[in-house]
Amino acid sequence: MIDASFTSPIDDQIKLVEERMLSQADGHHTAVVAALHHLLSSGGKRIRVVVTLLTGKMLGADTDKLVTLAAAIESLHTATLVHDDLIDGALIRRGIPTLNAQWSPAATVLTGDFIFSKAAKLAADTGSVDVMRIFAETLASIVNGEITQLFSSRWVANREDYYRRIYAKTASLFETSARTAAILSNASDDIVTATKHYGYNIGMAFQIIDDILDFTSEQTTMGKPVASDLRQGLITLPVLYYLENHNDDVDMKNILESNFCDEDCLGRLLTSIRESGAIEMSHLEARQYVQKGLDVLVNLPKSPERKALEELAVYIIDREI
Amino acid sequence: MIDASFTSPIDDQIKLVEERMLSQADGHHTAVVAALHHLLSSGGKRIRVVVTLLTGKMLGADTDKLVTLAAAIESLHTATLVHDDLIDGALIRRGIPTLNAQWSPAATVLTGDFIFSKAAKLAADTGSVDVMRIFAETLASIVNGEITQLFSSRWVANREDYYRRIYAKTASLFETSARTAAILSNASDDIVTATKHYGYNIGMAFQIIDDILDFTSEQTTMGKPVASDLRQGLITLPVLYYLENHNDDVDMKNILESNFCDEDCLGRLLTSIRESGAIEMSHLEARQYVQKGLDVLVNLPKSPERKALEELAVYIIDREI
Repeated sequence: MIDASFTSPIDDQIKLVEERMLSQADGHHTAVVAALHHLLSSGGKRIRVVVTLLTGKMLGADTDKLVTLAAAIESLHTATLVHDDLIDGALIRRGIPTLNAQWSPAATVLTGDFIFSKAAKLAADTGSVDVMRIFAETLASIVNGEITQLFSSRWVANREDYYRRIYAKTASLFETSARTAAILSNASDDIVTATKHYGYNIGMAFQIIDDILDFTSEQTTMGKPVASDLRQGLITLPVLYYLENHNDDVDMKNILESNFCDEDCLGRLLTSIRESGAIEMSHLEARQYVQKGLDVLVNLPKSPERKALEELAVYIIDREI
Repeated sequence: MIDASFTSPIDDQIKLVEERMLSQADGHHTAVVAALHHLLSSGGKRIRVVVTLLTGKMLGADTDKLVTLAAAIESLHTATLVHDDLIDGALIRRGIPTLNAQWSPAATVLTGDFIFSKAAKLAADTGSVDVMRIFAETLASIVNGEITQLFSSRWVANREDYYRRIYAKTASLFETSARTAAILSNASDDIVTATKHYGYNIGMAFQIIDDILDFTSEQTTMGKPVASDLRQGLITLPVLYYLENHNDDVDMKNILESNFCDEDCLGRLLTSIRESGAIEMSHLEARQYVQKGLDVLVNLPKSPERKALEELAVYIIDREI
């Protein structure tokens, strides 16, 4: 969980969300209960929960429905991670073993499905058909993004592809978190649109920072190898900036032609990118997204929660994990 | 699709359901479009679609909403089959290759997820929160049943387990098909309950007949080896009846102790079960379920659709595939 003062308006509700998520396993197979406990004990920042709760509280949503919505959103996120880790063969997430590191693929697929079903149940429990529809559309968008990535060629440098990918992967659910919280609060269309923009922009920034951290972090912090995206031939923003300013890089030319880069080549590329200023330019772009998010906040009711949403936006670009 | 006269009141709507399902891939990755076409072209009996449409039409549901609901239910069913076949390593279903026979596990998991998301979207499109909630609960029930089966010991003979399993696997979605169609028709609670019982009973019968066909069919008809359940150590109704009357069978005693049965042992057991009358007793039990389904139909409006639901119930026990 985020250890920051801006969660103080909603600390109690965050606990309720975790309880609500855990209680979804009640009455089901003990393996499901164990899996859910394992997944939730792994922590995670619960940043989508924070966005949902702050937005809804700011706009006067019913607390119980809001907690239900936040549990739905975090469950959806958790389910997609379970299947993602299986597909990527990831063995560690947030410093603890993934489900697929301990269980069979079959059990992992089914546990993800179970959490999807509970996410849908929680979304239905909000009682809002609009929330349900947006929720289902967001899941479709996330999964379509993953399928697109799976079937895409590696080592393709295309800015539009990149933005589409990080929207599907991350910004779509941030957007949905803020937007559905506003809908549940019966906010006006203008307010709903403003919260949607806020969620979109901080979501885009969040993923850009994640992609930057993949280049700058030590292995232990992220729980995965440095430049894991690059190792998979996945081109992220720092690489795009680097390419735009170094289209004569021999390694990069070879890679884009051969779709191959060995450890030596990766090492040289990593150093080049780190020294090129591409990281800083990516960071600047993330800041610009956050600024757009901050700009729309002025249209929302002045409140401790709005202040917290401002701090959250800044936290997103300043975080180191 | 079922080639039977009782679908005549809804033949046009069945086509609309198929179109609605296919259109879910619009605007998504070409691989998703191809997968959905492949899955839907494989046919299948669409029996849940028929139950949904007949029930809703009988009770005066709005046609467009009813078609949406039927598409939601068949999509949910299709998504669970995609993940099931992956987990079981099944290469053929309904005589054509499964998705996992042609695609990577990753693509298969994601395609299943995509169809889940579209099932949820279609359910939301019915505009009924009750439908959404029941829908999500049914998915949870199906998946919990699969997880339970996955973590269960093989060769366990327990009638209660068997009924729980076939409810989760099959009857729950039949029940939901009829029940949600009635809810969408704004039917009275009594009528909703009656349709729910109808769906439950024909669903239980449907799975018992499936389990019988696993013993009596030739390999080619079912597209999987004869006695595939028994090969996996999965005890179904014919085996339960056989055991109750032949608790001195040496093979069975050995199996239940050792959890193992080789090809010779399987062959002997299959012959013994077929000759024991256990198949006939299972069939009788399926007929009893169908009779219960027919009994509740008298509480529903007399109509061509009710007549068709009667014929459908009888078809379920008389079918050979």
